[in-house]
Amino acid sequence: MSVRKIRKNDQMREVTIIRDYINHPEGSVLISFGDTKVICNATVTEGVPSFLRDSGKGWVTAEYAMLPRATNTRNQRESKRGKQDGRSQEISRLIGRSLRAAVDFQKLGENTITIDCDVIQADGGTRTAAITGGFCALYMACEWMIKEEIITENPISGIVSAVSVGIVLGEPLLDLEYIEDSVADVDTNLVVKDCSDIVEIQGSAEKVAFNRDLLNQMLDLGFAGIEQLTKAQKQVLGI
Amino acid sequence: MSVRKIRKNDQMREVTIIRDYINHPEGSVLISFGDTKVICNATVTEGVPSFLRDSGKGWVTAEYAMLPRATNTRNQRESKRGKQDGRSQEISRLIGRSLRAAVDFQKLGENTITIDCDVIQADGGTRTAAITGGFCALYMACEWMIKEEIITENPISGIVSAVSVGIVLGEPLLDLEYIEDSVADVDTNLVVKDCSDIVEIQGSAEKVAFNRDLLNQMLDLGFAGIEQLTKAQKQVLGI
Amino acid sequence: MSVRKIRKNDQMREVTIIRDYINHPEGSVLISFGDTKVICNATVTEGVPSFLRDSGKGWVTAEYAMLPRATNTRNQRESKRGKQDGRSQEISRLIGRSLRAAVDFQKLGENTITIDCDVIQADGGTRTAAITGGFCALYMACEWMIKEEIITENPISGIVSAVSVGIVLGEPLLDLEYIEDSVADVDTNLVVKDCSDIVEIQGSAEKVAFNRDLLNQMLDLGFAGIEQLTKAQKQVLGI
Amino acid sequence: MSVRKIRKNDQMREVTIIRDYINHPEGSVLISFGDTKVICNATVTEGVPSFLRDSGKGWVTAEYAMLPRATNTRNQRESKRGKQDGRSQEISRLIGRSLRAAVDFQKLGENTITIDCDVIQADGGTRTAAITGGFCALYMACEWMIKEEIITENPISGIVSAVSVGIVLGEPLLDLEYIEDSVADVDTNLVVKDCSDIVEIQGSAEKVAFNRDLLNQMLDLGFAGIEQLTKAQKQVLGI
Amino acid sequence: MSVRKIRKNDQMREVTIIRDYINHPEGSVLISFGDTKVICNATVTEGVPSFLRDSGKGWVTAEYAMLPRATNTRNQRESKRGKQDGRSQEISRLIGRSLRAAVDFQKLGENTITIDCDVIQADGGTRTAAITGGFCALYMACEWMIKEEIITENPISGIVSAVSVGIVLGEPLLDLEYIEDSVADVDTNLVVKDCSDIVEIQGSAEKVAFNRDLLNQMLDLGFAGIEQLTKAQKQVLGI
Amino acid sequence: MSVRKIRKNDQMREVTIIRDYINHPEGSVLISFGDTKVICNATVTEGVPSFLRDSGKGWVTAEYAMLPRATNTRNQRESKRGKQDGRSQEISRLIGRSLRAAVDFQKLGENTITIDCDVIQADGGTRTAAITGGFCALYMACEWMIKEEIITENPISGIVSAVSVGIVLGEPLLDLEYIEDSVADVDTNLVVKDCSDIVEIQGSAEKVAFNRDLLNQMLDLGFAGIEQLTKAQKQVLGI
Repeated sequence: MSVRKIRKNDQMREVTIIRDYINHPEGSVLISFGDTKVICNATVTEGVPSFLRDSGKGWVTAEYAMLPRATNTRNQRESKRGKQDGRSQEISRLIGRSLRAAVDFQKLGENTITIDCDVIQADGGTRTAAITGGFCALYMACEWMIKEEIITENPISGIVSAVSVGIVLGEPLLDLEYIEDSVADVDTNLVVKDCSDIVEIQGSAEKVAFNRDLLNQMLDLGFAGIEQLTKAQKQVLGI
Repeated sequence: MSVRKIRKNDQMREVTIIRDYINHPEGSVLISFGDTKVICNATVTEGVPSFLRDSGKGWVTAEYAMLPRATNTRNQRESKRGKQDGRSQEISRLIGRSLRAAVDFQKLGENTITIDCDVIQADGGTRTAAITGGFCALYMACEWMIKEEIITENPISGIVSAVSVGIVLGEPLLDLEYIEDSVADVDTNLVVKDCSDIVEIQGSAEKVAFNRDLLNQMLDLGFAGIEQLTKAQKQVLGI
Repeated sequence: MSVRKIRKNDQMREVTIIRDYINHPEGSVLISFGDTKVICNATVTEGVPSFLRDSGKGWVTAEYAMLPRATNTRNQRESKRGKQDGRSQEISRLIGRSLRAAVDFQKLGENTITIDCDVIQADGGTRTAAITGGFCALYMACEWMIKEEIITENPISGIVSAVSVGIVLGEPLLDLEYIEDSVADVDTNLVVKDCSDIVEIQGSAEKVAFNRDLLNQMLDLGFAGIEQLTKAQKQVLGI
Repeated sequence: MSVRKIRKNDQMREVTIIRDYINHPEGSVLISFGDTKVICNATVTEGVPSFLRDSGKGWVTAEYAMLPRATNTRNQRESKRGKQDGRSQEISRLIGRSLRAAVDFQKLGENTITIDCDVIQADGGTRTAAITGGFCALYMACEWMIKEEIITENPISGIVSAVSVGIVLGEPLLDLEYIEDSVADVDTNLVVKDCSDIVEIQGSAEKVAFNRDLLNQMLDLGFAGIEQLTKAQKQVLGI
Repeated sequence: MSVRKIRKNDQMREVTIIRDYINHPEGSVLISFGDTKVICNATVTEGVPSFLRDSGKGWVTAEYAMLPRATNTRNQRESKRGKQDGRSQEISRLIGRSLRAAVDFQKLGENTITIDCDVIQADGGTRTAAITGGFCALYMACEWMIKEEIITENPISGIVSAVSVGIVLGEPLLDLEYIEDSVADVDTNLVVKDCSDIVEIQGSAEKVAFNRDLLNQMLDLGFAGIEQLTKAQKQVLGI
Repeated sequence: MSVRKIRKNDQMREVTIIRDYINHPEGSVLISFGDTKVICNATVTEGVPSFLRDSGKGWVTAEYAMLPRATNTRNQRESKRGKQDGRSQEISRLIGRSLRAAVDFQKLGENTITIDCDVIQADGGTRTAAITGGFCALYMACEWMIKEEIITENPISGIVSAVSVGIVLGEPLLDLEYIEDSVADVDTNLVVKDCSDIVEIQGSAEKVAFNRDLLNQMLDLGFAGIEQLTKAQKQVLGI
């Protein structure tokens, strides 16, 4: 008998991706993993950060934030505190690194794409939903650039998807909800390209350290979830 | 012949209010004035700011912000800049003052309700949509408090609605869209309680100063819009 | 019998404007509305903010602040708190908008005039004193620019004055002192150009909302006060 | 023949001290050393910083700032930059240390006196004027505390005065104006208690280092200036 | 033939740990991994953060920073920029999580141990050196608490060590120096408890995503390095 | 009989200066005055601050900071508080001014040398150790510039050394340790060039004001200490 009652251990929550959710951005989706909902908007701007100037190469960066009441208790606005908190910055950097793994910067030219991931409702897995939805917004922005004749070739070199896996009461579970996450011994986030290669793995054990066998079980579950996500991304992007 | 082609000068854009848009807050709506969309969430917390401690009275406050890509060009996050900008603070204060006009703080007891208004898509009139939607979230939070037996009597003393009116090429127009707002000579925001009494009036003429006759014409249009909004609020709140 | 004992309801407190109060600025006055005292200094600088570059047009901006002990209890310095408070920013923006209504930016050329309004003693009406005195400093700075042959024509297109009106115990009163302001039901600030056209109206009812009749009574009083202020401004500026 | 044309090398500029300049503070003066003008306000508050709690002793602290246009070119407001600059903090600390040398903290009881020194016009010697005027405001606040029966005995143990001395083209000069200060080889600030004992000496040579003989000549001039200032302080304080 | 010339692929750089490097802290070491040098200081304070108050449990937290010239080009001080950068915060959080995995908080009582890791010279692997050295400082602080009779039992439940592994030109390498790190396809940090269980794994592929086989090769190398580090820690701690 | 037991009143603590302590900077020493230890690193960068641009002259600036646990109780990191504290800024400015007194900026050309002084262990006299060690790092950086053929002539015009002197229980003492400093009536810092001319003198009496005779006794002790320091500097620099 398993810890989970309704879903199976290797089953994702319902995944939905709504295209063109906001009308101003060059790419925009609302992605949901169950009750977790993230608006992902892509903005294209000419030019690149100074360390890339005159390199002929582009850049992709990301920013992650939560609305104050995305969670059960209200968080103070980061703008009120006068700074981004450490967690937000860390996740922003993770999203940026993950998405850059799927981009041929030569083909992007000296342009920057900024992916804003704003969590409007949180129930676990916000960072993996943000990466998965952020990829869709990024892809749409690249298509927009081709349509606008800013670039000629699509710089996207693969599909990036992300999922969380955890160990709860000794059992590996895919796609943790908040209530599961809060009692997990281990929490692992897995970012994968084209369902095969790891872009990023972050496994963290505040409660109980884990051996290599458990790591492998978590990877098996994670790769199964990635398959489901990639399928949903392809469908919404029509690829 | 009028400046406006599709709507009449005294006609609101389509107004929609979706209840329970986010599941965590004690009150939550998504309000739209045409393409302007604002998530309004109400949070109830025990206790009051220090200036009200031991007064037996409650407090209502508000915070207004925009997602970076709510507008046509991306705005830098306030958390990145390290502070709220002046405009956001000014609108936050306006929303707070406006909503407090409808609350009997004695009946609220020593509790605080915080209204978060986050603009996810902007097309003019974001502050008036925020006040109108914020009132709905506030009302829902008060009903929640009664249901949870935190208070016994509803502290809401009237319905607060807000609308913008402007003068474009000499003609008074109700509920300006962004494109109208950007060429307006005068921009006036009107907050009204129970369709009759003014809670707040802010009229501002950067381009052309206006006489009392034009002020009165704007007030006529504004009160007409307020009627339509109050009706929509009543319907969604079931009052 | 009126709420007020000494002044009449439509009477300003004593208004004095001292020219050249500080010797460094291009325009400087100390303005007093009764015990409210504000130093208004104008600074002329070459160039304009980036959004106006190469437009051939100039800019006017303002900053408002209070000394820590301008009020009865000491306020912490904004520089200590690490930011301007919301109220200061809001008033700074109001002063800037109000003064820009009186300037022909083409005639100003690509120059910026900054109006610093520093309240050294506060007794109600600091923002209206700041606008009225700020206009004088602005006018003096324009005269200085002509004398220095930076511009050839005076860019000032009218006289801007500002006054507060309130409702205390149901009675409209002109130019509220602090003690009146603290018990007022409604507080309205009125900025007028050339004694006839409204540049800005801000009426706010935290305690009791007001109907259009009371709004009109407040406007009558306000315009009466504006007449007195404009006369004082003309006298000190010799126009 | 001397570098100075009008004043003698050992002559102060005209010193004036106006009592009760601002009406809210517990002690207030406007002090001028020639064209340098500083408002010094003293605020009395109950209680002390945490490191003195339950010690039975009081505290004196100071804050120094300049209006943006106190100088010939406008300085950005510290509140805009989001922090006090290093120079302001350094001078604030100097004023606090200097004034504390004249206070018996046992007699002050657990109360804090904050001295705000705001330079409204600067022409050299702003920190020495601030200390000299700050002492007057501090003394007045102590008298106020006795009158209000907060304390029974005057905690002031001596008169603190401060003056600057410099070396210009090899010649020691008392009380440097801005134009002299800007070409000085050495700039020394001297804070003295009761015309005899040194509370603080700060001599600084960015251009030319100085030997002990020159130091002694500067001290002679400085003590002469201190005599004149102490006399002015006694007169305005009636002691 | 390997990418590396001098060290073998599975060989650590020289590791040295100097005890009692700074004399004030309750635990202090200077740890070197080759030319990477980190001062790790442990501070014991009574009490815990608010979320643990009255739980009977203690807390361990960490802060990581670099001296401006720890690297080849000078970094601006974080205090000058007015905030910690994202990388520093992320590493601080990683160190804290890693060390907490080795602590029985019940035995620590309501006390907090803060581990400061200041990099004085950087040549790759600063975060893994910080964790490994930070553990030693933490252990020493716990011994000090027993000696001072603050606690009775040692709360340390295992030895935490950390090492980096990377893939350079397709080849897995242990303990990357800066020059290797800058060309690596993959960079993985591994934190292990008692040479057997994973506390944290962070693998990141900005250049080339990696399959599970390569992940396993990196883990093999990493565990080999951990053995060497744990031995060095035991020796310096005398356990 | 003296207050001091071990050292004589005119005796420095042991002074050691280790060259090339950190390997990245253009000049680097670890200086110790007894238990006070400061890392001084010099960084050479092309270009100068804007106020010197196109002047043909260079610049020298300094930054001073303490590790959190350099002192007996831990200080919060300045980067956490979001700003440098007043004391750090004041000392940074003092070090910069002191070192600039020894530089011919014409010979330095349009280059900037930044001296970072990071106190890793504090026991009184950190600012004087920082100036004395900072001079060595500065000198080494100038030698490096000649070797790299960035400049042709050494811009150093003399040797700058600094020492503290205090009055403890009425007795003048050279080079105060923390325990002496904490009970001193007077604390004086003396910066001298070439053992003869004063660059900076800062004497401060929070407890007991001092007369000119005591000032002279302190200066005698200070100059004696300076001789010892200059000798140590010459030896380590080989001049």
